[in-house]
Amino acid sequence: MRIPKHVGIIPDGNRRWAQNQGMTKEKGYESGLDPGLYAYRQCRDLGVDEVTFYGFTTDNTKRPSYQTEAFTKACVDAANLLINEGAALLVIGNTKSPMFPKELLPYTKRCEPKEGQIKANLLVNYGWHWDLNTLAEAQQVNKNNIQENIQSFDISRLDLIIRWGGRRRLSGFLPVQSIYADFYVVDDYWPAFNENHIPDAFSWYNKQDITLGG
Amino acid sequence: MRIPKHVGIIPDGNRRWAQNQGMTKEKGYESGLDPGLYAYRQCRDLGVDEVTFYGFTTDNTKRPSYQTEAFTKACVDAANLLINEGAALLVIGNTKSPMFPKELLPYTKRCEPKEGQIKANLLVNYGWHWDLNTLAEAQQVNKNNIQENIQSFDISRLDLIIRWGGRRRLSGFLPVQSIYADFYVVDDYWPAFNENHIPDAFSWYNKQDITLGG
Repeated sequence: MRIPKHVGIIPDGNRRWAQNQGMTKEKGYESGLDPGLYAYRQCRDLGVDEVTFYGFTTDNTKRPSYQTEAFTKACVDAANLLINEGAALLVIGNTKSPMFPKELLPYTKRCEPKEGQIKANLLVNYGWHWDLNTLAEAQQVNKNNIQENIQSFDISRLDLIIRWGGRRRLSGFLPVQSIYADFYVVDDYWPAFNENHIPDAFSWYNKQDITLGG
Repeated sequence: MRIPKHVGIIPDGNRRWAQNQGMTKEKGYESGLDPGLYAYRQCRDLGVDEVTFYGFTTDNTKRPSYQTEAFTKACVDAANLLINEGAALLVIGNTKSPMFPKELLPYTKRCEPKEGQIKANLLVNYGWHWDLNTLAEAQQVNKNNIQENIQSFDISRLDLIIRWGGRRRLSGFLPVQSIYADFYVVDDYWPAFNENHIPDAFSWYNKQDITLGG
Protein backbone atom coordinates (compact mmCIF):
# COMPACT_ATOMS: atom_id res chain seq x y z
CA MET A 1 0.00 0.00 0.00
CA ARG A 2 1.17 3.49 -0.92
CA ILE A 3 1.36 5.51 2.32
CA PRO A 4 1.34 9.33 2.17
CA LYS A 5 4.61 10.80 3.43
CA HIS A 6 2.99 13.98 4.73
CA VAL A 7 -0.60 14.17 6.01
CA GLY A 8 -2.50 17.39 6.74
CA ILE A 9 -5.22 17.29 9.39
CA ILE A 10 -8.00 19.90 9.42
CA PRO A 11 -9.82 19.14 12.67
CA ASP A 12 -13.06 20.99 11.98
CA GLY A 13 -16.46 20.71 13.64
CA ASN A 14 -15.54 21.21 17.31
CA ARG A 15 -18.18 23.90 17.85
CA ARG A 16 -20.92 22.07 15.97
CA TRP A 17 -20.15 18.91 17.92
CA ALA A 18 -20.35 20.75 21.25
CA GLN A 19 -23.70 22.29 20.35
CA ASN A 20 -25.06 18.87 19.33
CA GLN A 21 -24.00 17.60 22.76
CA GLY A 22 -25.92 20.41 24.45
CA MET A 23 -22.74 22.24 25.44
CA THR A 24 -21.70 25.78 24.58
CA LYS A 25 -19.59 26.04 21.44
CA GLU A 26 -16.22 26.68 23.02
CA LYS A 27 -16.40 23.45 25.02
CA GLY A 28 -15.68 21.44 21.87
CA TYR A 29 -12.00 22.20 21.58
CA GLU A 30 -10.70 20.23 24.55
CA SER A 31 -12.56 17.19 23.25
CA GLY A 32 -10.32 17.42 20.20
CA LEU A 33 -7.11 16.77 22.16
CA ASP A 34 -7.37 12.99 22.49
CA PRO A 35 -8.22 12.60 18.78
CA GLY A 36 -5.14 14.67 17.92
CA LEU A 37 -2.76 12.47 19.88
CA TYR A 38 -4.47 9.34 18.52
CA ALA A 39 -4.16 10.66 14.95
CA TYR A 40 -0.46 11.44 15.42
CA ARG A 41 0.21 7.94 16.78
CA GLN A 42 -1.84 6.27 14.08
CA CYS A 43 -0.05 8.15 11.27
CA ARG A 44 3.33 7.38 12.83
CA ASP A 45 2.54 3.68 13.19
CA LEU A 46 1.25 3.48 9.61
CA GLY A 47 4.55 4.83 8.25
CA VAL A 48 3.89 8.56 7.75
CA ASP A 49 6.92 10.87 8.10
CA GLU A 50 5.20 14.18 8.87
CA VAL A 51 1.78 15.32 10.14
CA THR A 52 0.51 18.89 10.10
CA PHE A 53 -2.39 19.98 12.31
CA TYR A 54 -4.42 23.10 11.54
CA GLY A 55 -4.64 24.79 14.94
CA PHE A 56 -6.08 28.26 14.48
CA THR A 57 -5.74 31.10 12.00
CA THR A 58 -5.45 34.85 12.22
CA ASP A 59 -8.99 34.92 10.74
CA ASN A 60 -10.26 32.72 13.58
CA THR A 61 -9.02 35.24 16.15
CA LYS A 62 -11.83 37.62 15.18
CA ARG A 63 -14.25 35.37 17.07
CA PRO A 64 -15.51 36.20 20.60
CA SER A 65 -12.80 36.01 23.27
CA TYR A 66 -14.34 33.08 25.15
CA GLN A 67 -13.84 31.08 21.93
CA THR A 68 -10.35 32.34 21.11
CA GLU A 69 -9.24 31.58 24.68
CA ALA A 70 -10.63 28.06 24.43
CA PHE A 71 -8.95 27.19 21.13
CA THR A 72 -5.67 28.84 22.16
CA LYS A 73 -5.60 26.74 25.34
CA ALA A 74 -6.34 23.63 23.28
CA CYS A 75 -3.36 24.40 21.01
CA VAL A 76 -1.02 24.83 23.99
CA ASP A 77 -2.28 21.57 25.46
CA ALA A 78 -1.90 19.82 22.09
CA ALA A 79 1.70 21.01 21.79
CA ASN A 80 2.48 19.66 25.26
CA LEU A 81 0.92 16.29 24.43
CA LEU A 82 3.05 16.04 21.29
CA ILE A 83 6.20 17.08 23.16
CA ASN A 84 5.54 14.47 25.85
CA GLU A 85 5.10 11.88 23.12
CA GLY A 86 8.52 12.84 21.74
CA ALA A 87 7.42 14.23 18.37
CA ALA A 88 9.67 16.53 16.35
CA LEU A 89 7.28 19.40 17.00
CA LEU A 90 7.31 22.66 15.03
CA VAL A 91 4.82 25.43 15.80
CA ILE A 92 4.26 27.81 12.88
CA GLY A 93 2.37 31.10 12.97
CA ASN A 94 2.62 34.83 13.40
CA THR A 95 4.50 35.23 16.67
CA LYS A 96 4.49 39.02 16.44
CA SER A 97 0.79 39.26 17.22
CA PRO A 98 -0.56 39.23 20.80
CA MET A 99 -2.80 36.31 19.77
CA PHE A 100 0.21 34.01 19.62
CA PRO A 101 0.53 32.16 22.97
CA LYS A 102 3.94 32.87 24.50
CA GLU A 103 4.12 29.35 25.95
CA LEU A 104 4.64 28.06 22.41
CA LEU A 105 7.55 30.33 21.45
CA PRO A 106 10.17 27.67 22.34
CA TYR A 107 8.64 25.33 19.73
CA THR A 108 8.91 27.72 16.80
CA LYS A 109 12.25 26.01 16.20
CA ARG A 110 11.76 22.32 15.49
CA CYS A 111 12.30 20.01 18.48
CA GLU A 112 14.54 16.96 18.34
CA PRO A 113 12.41 13.81 18.13
CA LYS A 114 12.67 10.88 20.50
CA GLU A 115 13.57 7.51 18.97
CA GLY A 116 10.89 6.29 16.55
CA GLN A 117 8.93 9.55 16.51
CA ILE A 118 8.06 11.72 13.48
CA LYS A 119 7.61 15.37 12.54
CA ALA A 120 4.48 17.09 13.82
CA ASN A 121 3.66 20.63 12.71
CA LEU A 122 1.06 22.74 14.49
CA LEU A 123 -0.27 25.90 12.82
CA VAL A 124 -0.98 28.49 15.52
CA ASN A 125 -2.12 32.00 14.64
CA TYR A 126 -1.32 31.06 11.07
CA GLY A 127 -2.44 33.11 8.06
CA TRP A 128 -1.95 32.23 4.41
CA HIS A 129 -1.12 35.90 3.65
CA TRP A 130 1.38 35.97 6.52
CA ASP A 131 2.91 32.81 5.07
CA LEU A 132 3.34 34.30 1.58
CA ASN A 133 4.39 37.81 2.62
CA THR A 134 8.08 36.92 2.89
CA LEU A 135 8.16 36.30 -0.86
CA ALA A 136 8.22 40.07 -1.17
CA GLU A 137 11.44 40.24 0.84
CA ALA A 138 13.19 37.41 -0.97
CA GLN A 139 16.13 38.43 -3.15
CA GLN A 140 15.14 36.32 -6.10
CA VAL A 141 12.16 34.05 -6.35
CA ASN A 142 11.78 31.55 -9.16
CA LYS A 143 9.85 28.45 -10.03
CA ASN A 144 11.99 26.20 -7.88
CA ASN A 145 12.43 28.17 -4.68
CA ILE A 146 9.02 29.55 -3.71
CA GLN A 147 8.69 26.90 -1.02
CA GLU A 148 12.08 27.93 0.42
CA ASN A 149 11.07 31.56 0.70
CA ILE A 150 7.76 31.38 2.52
CA GLN A 151 7.38 31.47 6.30
CA SER A 152 6.44 27.78 6.40
CA PHE A 153 9.56 26.70 4.47
CA ASP A 154 10.23 23.91 6.95
CA ILE A 155 6.90 22.22 6.18
CA SER A 156 7.11 19.90 3.17
CA ARG A 157 4.66 19.34 0.31
CA LEU A 158 1.46 17.64 1.45
CA ASP A 159 0.39 14.33 -0.09
CA LEU A 160 -2.98 13.95 1.61
CA ILE A 161 -5.20 16.41 3.47
CA ILE A 162 -7.99 15.02 5.64
CA ARG A 163 -10.69 17.42 6.77
CA TRP A 164 -13.23 16.47 9.44
CA GLY A 165 -16.64 18.12 9.80
CA GLY A 166 -17.92 17.72 6.23
CA ARG A 167 -16.73 20.96 4.64
CA ARG A 168 -14.91 20.73 1.33
CA ARG A 169 -12.52 23.63 1.33
CA LEU A 170 -8.97 24.37 2.41
CA SER A 171 -9.78 27.54 4.39
CA GLY A 172 -6.28 28.93 3.92
CA PHE A 173 -4.43 25.76 4.92
CA LEU A 174 -0.83 25.95 3.58
CA PRO A 175 -1.69 26.98 0.00
CA VAL A 176 1.78 26.28 -1.41
CA GLN A 177 2.17 22.84 0.17
CA SER A 178 -1.42 21.89 -0.76
CA ILE A 179 -0.98 22.43 -4.52
CA TYR A 180 -0.98 18.74 -5.44
CA ALA A 181 -2.43 17.23 -2.27
CA ASP A 182 -5.33 14.81 -2.47
CA PHE A 183 -8.25 16.04 -0.39
CA TYR A 184 -10.37 13.64 1.68
CA VAL A 185 -13.39 14.74 3.69
CA VAL A 186 -14.77 12.98 6.78
CA ASP A 187 -18.35 13.97 7.54
CA ASP A 188 -18.01 13.29 11.28
CA TYR A 189 -17.01 16.20 13.51
CA TRP A 190 -13.43 16.12 14.80
CA PRO A 191 -14.33 15.31 18.45
CA ALA A 192 -16.27 12.31 17.06
CA PHE A 193 -13.00 11.00 15.56
CA ASN A 194 -12.83 7.23 15.34
CA GLU A 195 -10.03 4.80 14.62
CA ASN A 196 -11.31 4.00 11.12
CA HIS A 197 -11.18 7.54 9.73
CA ILE A 198 -7.47 7.66 8.94
CA PRO A 199 -7.20 4.06 7.60
CA ASP A 200 -10.24 4.77 5.39
CA ALA A 201 -8.58 7.94 4.08
CA PHE A 202 -5.36 6.02 3.40
CA SER A 203 -7.25 3.29 1.51
CA TRP A 204 -8.84 5.97 -0.67
CA TYR A 205 -5.47 7.69 -1.17
CA ASN A 206 -3.96 4.37 -2.24
CA LYS A 207 -6.38 4.26 -5.18
CA GLN A 208 -5.49 7.74 -6.47
CA ASP A 209 -2.87 8.13 -9.15
CA ILE A 210 -0.16 10.72 -8.73
CA THR A 211 0.69 12.71 -11.84
CA LEU A 212 1.93 16.10 -10.55
CA GLY A 213 0.58 17.52 -13.82
CA GLY A 214 2.70 15.26 -16.04
CA MET B 1 -30.89 29.99 -3.91
CA ARG B 2 -27.40 31.28 -3.21
CA ILE B 3 -25.55 31.35 -6.54
CA PRO B 4 -21.72 31.42 -6.58
CA LYS B 5 -20.39 34.66 -8.06
CA HIS B 6 -17.24 33.05 -9.42
CA VAL B 7 -17.01 29.42 -10.55
CA GLY B 8 -13.79 27.55 -11.35
CA ILE B 9 -13.94 24.70 -13.84
CA ILE B 10 -11.26 21.98 -13.86
CA PRO B 11 -12.13 19.99 -16.99
CA ASP B 12 -10.17 16.83 -16.23
CA GLY B 13 -10.44 13.34 -17.72
CA ASN B 14 -10.14 14.09 -21.44
CA ARG B 15 -7.41 11.49 -21.99
CA ARG B 16 -9.06 8.81 -19.88
CA TRP B 17 -12.35 9.40 -21.72
CA ALA B 18 -10.66 9.08 -25.12
CA GLN B 19 -9.00 5.83 -24.13
CA ASN B 20 -12.31 4.43 -22.88
CA GLN B 21 -13.78 5.30 -26.28
CA GLY B 22 -11.01 3.35 -28.01
CA MET B 23 -9.31 6.52 -29.25
CA THR B 24 -5.76 7.68 -28.60
CA LYS B 25 -5.40 9.96 -25.59
CA GLU B 26 -4.93 13.27 -27.38
CA LYS B 27 -8.24 12.90 -29.20
CA GLY B 28 -10.12 13.72 -26.01
CA TYR B 29 -9.45 17.44 -25.94
CA GLU B 30 -11.58 18.54 -28.85
CA SER B 31 -14.50 16.68 -27.32
CA GLY B 32 -14.18 19.08 -24.39
CA LEU B 33 -15.01 22.17 -26.46
CA ASP B 34 -18.78 21.80 -26.60
CA PRO B 35 -18.98 21.13 -22.85
CA GLY B 36 -16.95 24.31 -22.25
CA LEU B 37 -19.30 26.53 -24.20
CA TYR B 38 -22.33 24.82 -22.62
CA ALA B 39 -20.84 25.34 -19.13
CA TYR B 40 -20.19 29.02 -19.81
CA ARG B 41 -23.75 29.56 -21.02
CA GLN B 42 -25.25 27.60 -18.16
CA CYS B 43 -23.28 29.56 -15.53
CA ARG B 44 -24.20 32.84 -17.20
CA ASP B 45 -27.89 31.94 -17.35
CA LEU B 46 -27.90 30.82 -13.71
CA GLY B 47 -26.58 34.22 -12.60
CA VAL B 48 -22.83 33.67 -12.23
CA ASP B 49 -20.59 36.74 -12.83
CA GLU B 50 -17.29 35.07 -13.67
CA VAL B 51 -16.13 31.61 -14.83
CA THR B 52 -12.52 30.42 -14.91
CA PHE B 53 -11.46 27.43 -17.02
CA TYR B 54 -8.27 25.51 -16.31
CA GLY B 55 -6.73 25.18 -19.77
CA PHE B 56 -3.21 23.84 -19.42
CA THR B 57 -0.28 24.38 -17.09
CA THR B 58 3.45 24.74 -17.49
CA ASP B 59 3.70 21.28 -15.86
CA ASN B 60 1.39 19.82 -18.53
CA THR B 61 3.76 20.99 -21.27
CA LYS B 62 6.25 18.28 -20.26
CA ARG B 63 3.98 15.72 -21.94
CA PRO B 64 4.67 14.30 -25.44
CA SER B 65 4.29 16.87 -28.22
CA TYR B 66 1.30 15.18 -29.90
CA GLN B 67 -0.54 15.77 -26.62
CA THR B 68 0.67 19.34 -26.02
CA GLU B 69 -0.28 20.26 -29.59
CA ALA B 70 -3.76 18.82 -29.11
CA PHE B 71 -4.52 20.64 -25.87
CA THR B 72 -2.99 23.88 -27.13
CA LYS B 73 -5.24 23.76 -30.20
CA ALA B 74 -8.23 23.05 -27.95
CA CYS B 75 -7.44 26.15 -25.88
CA VAL B 76 -7.18 28.36 -28.97
CA ASP B 77 -10.50 26.95 -30.22
CA ALA B 78 -12.09 27.46 -26.80
CA ALA B 79 -10.98 31.09 -26.73
CA ASN B 80 -12.51 31.67 -30.16
CA LEU B 81 -15.80 30.07 -29.10
CA LEU B 82 -15.95 32.34 -26.05
CA ILE B 83 -15.08 35.43 -28.11
CA ASN B 84 -17.78 34.58 -30.65
CA GLU B 85 -20.23 34.21 -27.79
CA GLY B 86 -19.29 37.71 -26.61
CA ALA B 87 -17.74 36.81 -23.26
CA ALA B 88 -15.40 39.21 -21.47
CA LEU B 89 -12.49 36.85 -22.12
CA LEU B 90 -9.16 37.06 -20.33
CA VAL B 91 -6.37 34.59 -21.11
CA ILE B 92 -3.85 34.23 -18.28
CA GLY B 93 -0.52 32.42 -18.45
CA ASN B 94 3.19 32.73 -19.05
CA THR B 95 3.38 34.46 -22.42
CA LYS B 96 7.19 34.55 -22.38
CA SER B 97 7.48 30.83 -23.00
CA PRO B 98 7.31 29.29 -26.50
CA MET B 99 4.51 27.04 -25.23
CA PHE B 100 2.13 30.01 -25.11
CA PRO B 101 0.14 30.11 -28.38
CA LYS B 102 0.68 33.48 -30.11
CA GLU B 103 -2.90 33.50 -31.40
CA LEU B 104 -4.03 34.15 -27.83
CA LEU B 105 -1.80 37.15 -27.11
CA PRO B 106 -4.57 39.67 -27.99
CA TYR B 107 -6.74 38.21 -25.21
CA THR B 108 -4.21 38.69 -22.41
CA LYS B 109 -5.99 42.01 -21.90
CA ARG B 110 -9.63 41.46 -20.97
CA CYS B 111 -12.08 41.80 -23.87
CA GLU B 112 -15.16 43.98 -23.69
CA PRO B 113 -18.25 41.79 -23.25
CA LYS B 114 -21.28 41.87 -25.48
CA GLU B 115 -24.59 42.76 -23.83
CA GLY B 116 -25.63 40.19 -21.24
CA GLN B 117 -22.34 38.30 -21.26
CA ILE B 118 -20.03 37.64 -18.30
CA LYS B 119 -16.33 37.31 -17.51
CA ALA B 120 -14.58 34.15 -18.74
CA ASN B 121 -10.98 33.47 -17.74
CA LEU B 122 -8.90 30.83 -19.49
CA LEU B 123 -5.64 29.66 -17.93
CA VAL B 124 -3.16 28.89 -20.71
CA ASN B 125 0.42 27.87 -19.95
CA TYR B 126 -0.38 28.83 -16.37
CA GLY B 127 1.85 27.92 -13.42
CA TRP B 128 1.12 28.58 -9.76
CA HIS B 129 4.79 29.52 -9.23
CA TRP B 130 4.67 31.87 -12.21
CA ASP B 131 1.54 33.40 -10.68
CA LEU B 132 3.19 34.04 -7.29
CA ASN B 133 6.60 35.12 -8.55
CA THR B 134 5.62 38.75 -8.94
CA LEU B 135 5.16 39.02 -5.17
CA ALA B 136 8.95 39.19 -5.04
CA GLU B 137 8.93 42.30 -7.21
CA ALA B 138 6.15 44.06 -5.35
CA GLN B 139 7.20 47.11 -3.38
CA GLN B 140 5.27 46.21 -0.27
CA VAL B 141 3.07 43.20 0.22
CA ASN B 142 0.73 42.88 3.17
CA LYS B 143 -2.28 40.94 4.27
CA ASN B 144 -4.68 42.89 2.13
CA ASN B 145 -2.87 43.24 -1.16
CA ILE B 146 -1.46 39.82 -2.05
CA GLN B 147 -4.22 39.32 -4.59
CA GLU B 148 -3.35 42.65 -6.24
CA ASN B 149 0.29 41.73 -6.66
CA ILE B 150 0.10 38.31 -8.30
CA GLN B 151 0.03 37.76 -12.04
CA SER B 152 -3.64 36.73 -11.94
CA PHE B 153 -4.70 39.91 -10.09
CA ASP B 154 -7.62 40.40 -12.48
CA ILE B 155 -9.19 37.06 -11.46
CA SER B 156 -11.36 37.38 -8.35
CA ARG B 157 -11.73 35.07 -5.36
CA LEU B 158 -13.39 31.78 -6.26
CA ASP B 159 -16.59 30.70 -4.51
CA LEU B 160 -16.97 27.25 -6.04
CA ILE B 161 -14.54 24.99 -7.90
CA ILE B 162 -15.96 22.06 -9.87
CA ARG B 163 -13.55 19.38 -10.99
CA TRP B 164 -14.55 16.68 -13.48
CA GLY B 165 -12.84 13.30 -13.74
CA GLY B 166 -13.03 12.19 -10.10
CA ARG B 167 -9.76 13.51 -8.73
CA ARG B 168 -9.90 15.50 -5.51
CA ARG B 169 -7.06 17.95 -5.77
CA LEU B 170 -6.44 21.46 -7.03
CA SER B 171 -3.34 20.63 -9.13
CA GLY B 172 -2.05 24.19 -8.90
CA PHE B 173 -5.31 25.91 -9.84
CA LEU B 174 -5.14 29.57 -8.68
CA PRO B 175 -3.92 28.91 -5.12
CA VAL B 176 -4.64 32.43 -3.84
CA GLN B 177 -8.16 32.67 -5.26
CA SER B 178 -8.96 29.10 -4.12
CA ILE B 179 -8.25 29.75 -0.42
CA TYR B 180 -11.91 29.70 0.69
CA ALA B 181 -13.53 28.06 -2.34
CA ASP B 182 -15.87 25.12 -1.88
CA PHE B 183 -14.66 22.13 -3.88
CA TYR B 184 -17.09 19.86 -5.73
CA VAL B 185 -16.01 16.77 -7.65
CA VAL B 186 -17.87 15.19 -10.58
CA ASP B 187 -16.83 11.60 -11.21
CA ASP B 188 -17.69 11.74 -14.92
CA TYR B 189 -14.93 12.71 -17.33
CA TRP B 190 -15.14 16.21 -18.79
CA PRO B 191 -16.11 15.13 -22.35
CA ALA B 192 -19.00 13.18 -20.73
CA PHE B 193 -20.31 16.48 -19.30
CA ASN B 194 -24.06 16.58 -18.93
CA GLU B 195 -26.54 19.35 -18.24
CA ASN B 196 -27.13 18.24 -14.63
CA HIS B 197 -23.54 18.51 -13.43
CA ILE B 198 -23.49 22.25 -12.82
CA PRO B 199 -27.00 22.51 -11.34
CA ASP B 200 -26.12 19.60 -9.01
CA ALA B 201 -22.94 21.39 -7.94
CA PHE B 202 -24.90 24.60 -7.32
CA SER B 203 -27.49 22.74 -5.21
CA TRP B 204 -24.68 21.32 -3.10
CA TYR B 205 -23.03 24.75 -2.84
CA ASN B 206 -26.32 26.24 -1.68
CA LYS B 207 -26.23 23.97 1.37
CA GLN B 208 -22.72 24.99 2.46
CA ASP B 209 -22.26 27.74 4.99
CA ILE B 210 -19.75 30.47 4.32
CA THR B 211 -17.65 31.52 7.29
CA LEU B 212 -14.36 32.77 5.78
CA GLY B 213 -12.74 31.60 9.02
CA GLY B 214 -14.96 33.77 11.25
